[in-house]
Amino acid sequence: MEKSLKQIAKYVDGELVGDSSIKIKGISGIEEAQIGDLTFLANPRYRRFLHTTSASAVIVGKDVKTEGIKIPFIRHSNPYYAFAQVIKLFEEAEKIYPEGTHPTAVLAEDVQVEKGVHIGPHVVIEKGASLRRHSAVLAGSFVGTNSIVGENTLVYPNVTIREHVEIGKNVIIHSGSVIGSDGFGYAKQKGIHHKIPQVGKVKIEDDVEIGANVTIDRATMGVTRIGKGTKIDNLVQIGHNVNIGENCIIVAQVGIGGSTKVGHDSVLAGQAGLVGHIRIGSRVVIGAQSGVTKDIPDDTTVFGYPAREIHQTKRIEAHLSRLDLYLKRLKELERIIKER
Amino acid sequence: MEKSLKQIAKYVDGELVGDSSIKIKGISGIEEAQIGDLTFLANPRYRRFLHTTSASAVIVGKDVKTEGIKIPFIRHSNPYYAFAQVIKLFEEAEKIYPEGTHPTAVLAEDVQVEKGVHIGPHVVIEKGASLRRHSAVLAGSFVGTNSIVGENTLVYPNVTIREHVEIGKNVIIHSGSVIGSDGFGYAKQKGIHHKIPQVGKVKIEDDVEIGANVTIDRATMGVTRIGKGTKIDNLVQIGHNVNIGENCIIVAQVGIGGSTKVGHDSVLAGQAGLVGHIRIGSRVVIGAQSGVTKDIPDDTTVFGYPAREIHQTKRIEAHLSRLDLYLKRLKELERIIKER
Amino acid sequence: MEKSLKQIAKYVDGELVGDSSIKIKGISGIEEAQIGDLTFLANPRYRRFLHTTSASAVIVGKDVKTEGIKIPFIRHSNPYYAFAQVIKLFEEAEKIYPEGTHPTAVLAEDVQVEKGVHIGPHVVIEKGASLRRHSAVLAGSFVGTNSIVGENTLVYPNVTIREHVEIGKNVIIHSGSVIGSDGFGYAKQKGIHHKIPQVGKVKIEDDVEIGANVTIDRATMGVTRIGKGTKIDNLVQIGHNVNIGENCIIVAQVGIGGSTKVGHDSVLAGQAGLVGHIRIGSRVVIGAQSGVTKDIPDDTTVFGYPAREIHQTKRIEAHLSRLDLYLKRLKELERIIKER
Repeated sequence: MEKSLKQIAKYVDGELVGDSSIKIKGISGIEEAQIGDLTFLANPRYRRFLHTTSASAVIVGKDVKTEGIKIPFIRHSNPYYAFAQVIKLFEEAEKIYPEGTHPTAVLAEDVQVEKGVHIGPHVVIEKGASLRRHSAVLAGSFVGTNSIVGENTLVYPNVTIREHVEIGKNVIIHSGSVIGSDGFGYAKQKGIHHKIPQVGKVKIEDDVEIGANVTIDRATMGVTRIGKGTKIDNLVQIGHNVNIGENCIIVAQVGIGGSTKVGHDSVLAGQAGLVGHIRIGSRVVIGAQSGVTKDIPDDTTVFGYPAREIHQTKRIEAHLSRLDLYLKRLKELERIIKER
Repeated sequence: MEKSLKQIAKYVDGELVGDSSIKIKGISGIEEAQIGDLTFLANPRYRRFLHTTSASAVIVGKDVKTEGIKIPFIRHSNPYYAFAQVIKLFEEAEKIYPEGTHPTAVLAEDVQVEKGVHIGPHVVIEKGASLRRHSAVLAGSFVGTNSIVGENTLVYPNVTIREHVEIGKNVIIHSGSVIGSDGFGYAKQKGIHHKIPQVGKVKIEDDVEIGANVTIDRATMGVTRIGKGTKIDNLVQIGHNVNIGENCIIVAQVGIGGSTKVGHDSVLAGQAGLVGHIRIGSRVVIGAQSGVTKDIPDDTTVFGYPAREIHQTKRIEAHLSRLDLYLKRLKELERIIKER
Repeated sequence: MEKSLKQIAKYVDGELVGDSSIKIKGISGIEEAQIGDLTFLANPRYRRFLHTTSASAVIVGKDVKTEGIKIPFIRHSNPYYAFAQVIKLFEEAEKIYPEGTHPTAVLAEDVQVEKGVHIGPHVVIEKGASLRRHSAVLAGSFVGTNSIVGENTLVYPNVTIREHVEIGKNVIIHSGSVIGSDGFGYAKQKGIHHKIPQVGKVKIEDDVEIGANVTIDRATMGVTRIGKGTKIDNLVQIGHNVNIGENCIIVAQVGIGGSTKVGHDSVLAGQAGLVGHIRIGSRVVIGAQSGVTKDIPDDTTVFGYPAREIHQTKRIEAHLSRLDLYLKRLKELERIIKER
């Protein structure tokens, strides 16, 4: 496959500077790019490669200084997004899972399978479940009683979707994830932990992506909900009755305790932990490995263990680096006082 | 299904105040409850909903002020436990897995399958394994050579139980968990890590619950043991030769290093990490995200990174919040001294 | 099985002191050992058991004081390694997976299966994949399109290997792990996160071991690489385009952000987190739960949150323990100044 740079610039709606007739044969990261490749610069850390890359062309942001760039470039307000569009253009054959049910799949009699659905080998689908149009459930995955896999949704191999889980449209669930496991709830009576039956549901809204080996517990009662467009990375734990808003980013190994609510457009960086029963606002940013124990209002960035407003944590960190010095100053005062 | 409040109060052995003839049709959390629902108040954070809930009745603790509550209520010394009992009462049909082996399951010839055992589709059970009375192994799970699944134990879909793993009675293992993976042990010789063969076992005692995507490594030699009644949340890592006592609570994403011992009735909060080869006492509480590197005696609460006795950590945190002030006071002294 | 101590000493090339005719019937840890067992002492924490063990013989390091040891012993420069060799000697029947494909496995027509390969029940292998000589893929595992399982490599039950993943020789992958899941990459445009197609690969080099429920993401473009001889514990997250060198040790629940590079012979202790796009040198040690946000040069030990050079972190920790005292000294100075 081959496209001219002119075609590509038009496709991504960018401003082309340089030889528009250049042929692009592939796409690549800026470090590894070869002649014939198109690359991009979105992260300033990689700016130094702009002059050494072997790529034939590059997509750059509006604010990048382009003096001295020897290759043609496309200016775009969002180079990462533009590049993503080009990757899709170049993906030779998009993964299309053909309609049909593999003969080794085991489906209960009353499972509803709509048009265009793909069911892979050794899949198990239990009674009352529905697979909506053009959804795909790949090898070895399990869909429990009365659960719904929405239109155009893709379930990778070896996923477990327990009973009464509702999954929206255009959702992607990666391998090894478990949706609808029991919430972690016990009532202690005479030293023994008695299990609280977990009779609630899970609702995954449209356009959500769930990484590999994620666990999302069902609600004790009611529903555990992941809002539309939210993206969850690998090995994340979502407790029972958690409610996540729309378009959030939840990075790998984050843990969220039961009944906690998160607003819209918030970002939870890797390995952050949130206790149960708190409310996190919208457009909140929680730094990596932070430990959050209290409500956080909208539009706040927190960081640290325990999590504090970020400027406060940065200030404490700066003090910590100077404790040696402070102690020295204290000693000096003690010396002076003593001598006087 | 419908029960009178009087019936329910009697069932949970609580003290009923108000109209005992009220009919309860369902159960619900205090925020979401509708007319006809019974709810409960155990967590003080939700007290404000006591006067606004639409529930028809509520179970409350002995110490809750009940003036002004407009709905009938049941007083109980342990409202959460009482409520758990009611949930069980209302679960329309308890999950019962019927006796039988799905035709797609693959069992070695000598597998012992006792009465009432359910084996789901695509299950694989290897030679010498035993499934005790009324146990259930659901779709896609694997039980290795010579392993035992105890009486009444439930193994959810896509669980892996390796060889020589002994699981007691009334155990629940959630999807994606791996019991008996090799311990992480290497001997370094001339820069190369040589694998220490992991030839030990795992023993899961009665009444244990293991969450989703948990990993419990087999012992190098000897046994990795989880004591009776201990409950483990999702994504927890238990290293080789770890020994956990009875009735412990291990919250999501905790990691326990090899050969560490934990006593009885201890609580390890979310994302806490324990190094290997240490001894944690009984009735110990380890705060969320704490990093434990030393032995902890019985009846101790620790918190922090590194974990310290909790009052010490709280004191340090208070100092950290005042470092600005301390520095100001130091500067003031320096100014005074200089001027004199 | 029974070996004389003399035979064993010769086998491990150690120096035997005491009765060489003693018969060894088994192997065991120093605490649990019985008469007839050989044990070892590598960790000084267990030295106290040297005089109380019931073992019939013990392997000890060159520097262990042996006065008063009542049982024969073998001196060895690397007792742990020597013991590992003896375990292998005693493993009665090494796990050998016989050549053959289970009839329930589902293989695409063009899958290449070399000599001596074992394919377990319910395995799924997609088109273009290759299983090299004497490799074994156990029950319920999945191998995607065009992926390669190298010679002598062992894939435990319920592993997912996605498409275009290349796995070298003598690799071990434990249950529940997912190799080649999509990297976590989105371009934000008008408030919506658009998925960056993840079209890269994963390369696992020879002699790597991967624990249970690990996730290794495929590269966005290019390759995510795990270097020869590196060992990865359970529940570790490796982001897209990460590049790990040779003979590293990555302990349980570590998370490594996208595009980060790690050199050779480095050790990442449990629950450590590394942000994306940084470079970690060779022979680096990162302490447990550390949060690494910056490049780390070769031969450096870091620890803490945020990670600092270890002496610096230890110094800060010491200051923290003395803040009470510092404040007291500050108050005393204030008192004196005020009084003068």
